[in-house]
Amino acid sequence: MLDVCLAGTGGMMPLENRWLTCCWTEYQGDAILIDCGEGTQIALKKAGCKLSRLRLLLFTHFHADHTAGLPGLLLTVGNSGKTSPLTIVGPRGLRRVVEALMTIAPALTYPLELVELDASQPGSLDAAPLEISWLPLRHRVPCVGYRITLQRPPVFNPQKAQALAIPVQFYRRLHAGQAVELEDGRTIQPEQVLDGERAPIRVCYCTDTLPIPEIATFAQNADLMIGEGMYGDDEMREKLQEKTHSLFSDTARLAKQAGAQQLWLTHYSPALTDPQGCLDVARAIFPATTAAYDGIRTTLTGE
Amino acid sequence: MLDVCLAGTGGMMPLENRWLTCCWTEYQGDAILIDCGEGTQIALKKAGCKLSRLRLLLFTHFHADHTAGLPGLLLTVGNSGKTSPLTIVGPRGLRRVVEALMTIAPALTYPLELVELDASQPGSLDAAPLEISWLPLRHRVPCVGYRITLQRPPVFNPQKAQALAIPVQFYRRLHAGQAVELEDGRTIQPEQVLDGERAPIRVCYCTDTLPIPEIATFAQNADLMIGEGMYGDDEMREKLQEKTHSLFSDTARLAKQAGAQQLWLTHYSPALTDPQGCLDVARAIFPATTAAYDGIRTTLTGE
Repeated sequence: MLDVCLAGTGGMMPLENRWLTCCWTEYQGDAILIDCGEGTQIALKKAGCKLSRLRLLLFTHFHADHTAGLPGLLLTVGNSGKTSPLTIVGPRGLRRVVEALMTIAPALTYPLELVELDASQPGSLDAAPLEISWLPLRHRVPCVGYRITLQRPPVFNPQKAQALAIPVQFYRRLHAGQAVELEDGRTIQPEQVLDGERAPIRVCYCTDTLPIPEIATFAQNADLMIGEGMYGDDEMREKLQEKTHSLFSDTARLAKQAGAQQLWLTHYSPALTDPQGCLDVARAIFPATTAAYDGIRTTLTGE
Repeated sequence: MLDVCLAGTGGMMPLENRWLTCCWTEYQGDAILIDCGEGTQIALKKAGCKLSRLRLLLFTHFHADHTAGLPGLLLTVGNSGKTSPLTIVGPRGLRRVVEALMTIAPALTYPLELVELDASQPGSLDAAPLEISWLPLRHRVPCVGYRITLQRPPVFNPQKAQALAIPVQFYRRLHAGQAVELEDGRTIQPEQVLDGERAPIRVCYCTDTLPIPEIATFAQNADLMIGEGMYGDDEMREKLQEKTHSLFSDTARLAKQAGAQQLWLTHYSPALTDPQGCLDVARAIFPATTAAYDGIRTTLTGE
């Protein structure tokens, strides 16, 4: 089970009633945060995300609305008593940006481990038990989308085990994928008692970007696709082309092509005061679209 | 008349219900902001302060709770269409800090003019028609308090002018301090029709600091003293000595010694959830003490 929370949903600047977009994903008490704009530490607290669980911070790109909250967040995490390392991942230039921002937060109680990735081509990194992949997006500056994948072990089938008269003490090892030798001399392979692979759980976060087709492939069969909704009105297309952002309808089309289970729209323009009111166009294309709001959360079970 | 607004009143970290301390002073449509922590741009908007009026930004010191909002504020000011220069003042190191923070906001539509001051000794700078003075405070890092002074011209006394049979068209020049020669050959000096100097209007902002006696001199006869109230409870003294901060009672004592008209306490610890509830101790020392709250404002008329 993967818990996902979008603590903020705004773009460009924080507003009194809308925090900047950021995504909190938690699995077994360890949390991953994507992006950290001005005020993100407040948004996370308000949404009930526990900063002490933060293990990994991913930056999509280095515009201020995605990064300016870093010094404050790191200091507040330090005040909560953290001493274990925090890993921060982002496109090349990460080290320069983090070191610059830390000018006003020079002494942390825990080490930072910085991982720069090549934003010009797709890639992945191991964050066992999760896998994190990135996709180059098309924005004014190098920018990536992220996909967090939880692989799930096959389901153990006790009926099959009973039919084979396997003693209970061997169940755990078989479920973990190991063959066992029974006292009667039989060797049991895991496949004999497992019900096959289950689809992984995937959450995908892609903003800021033009609606490039690669996103549909990247988000293929995602349990949750979180995508850009800078404007709801299709008449804004020309403006967004220049600014390299996406419309509600653009992102809904990508979610449909991806075969995603559901889509949350985020990164609203400050001028977009009523995202709900623009939802019809997106839902006509991809019915399982939600105009996300600050603090929206879900638990992805893969069922 | 000087308008003063404390858009935030918190210290250390921004909270859901308390912005970080910052002070907005406005005179004839031009505004001065002291300090800019994470979220200050939201706090200012919420308090009704118009960012388009910002002409001068003063930093007391460079801890993140006083500076981290800079990139976001400057970008938002730029989005409002500003093209005229913005002057930023602060202790030595200002250039390094501003340049570092601007890593995530590299392209502004207006120039920044940076003025570094020597925080080891008092000084002043001209911001006509206002005068800005600073005082070295005692904090873990170089830190200054600021005093904003509005000198007021003497009052023109029409009775005196009428008694001297001075034609009305000369009143304005006399009020501006210029001697005039009348058609009948008499020369009139301004002193003959003015009622003497009026006390200037002064607002004084001193945080973060130990309660050093120099503050009382610096805030002498201030119309409004804004001072540090990290904790209300005197039992926190030992902790604050180490952290170089002040108690409610410390600052009330300084306001009394200064003969200030009124005192606003600010820069509350996040642990101080009810500043109002701690006010008795301070008021027993200096009755005109207010536990400031986000958005508190006043107009200082000097009357």
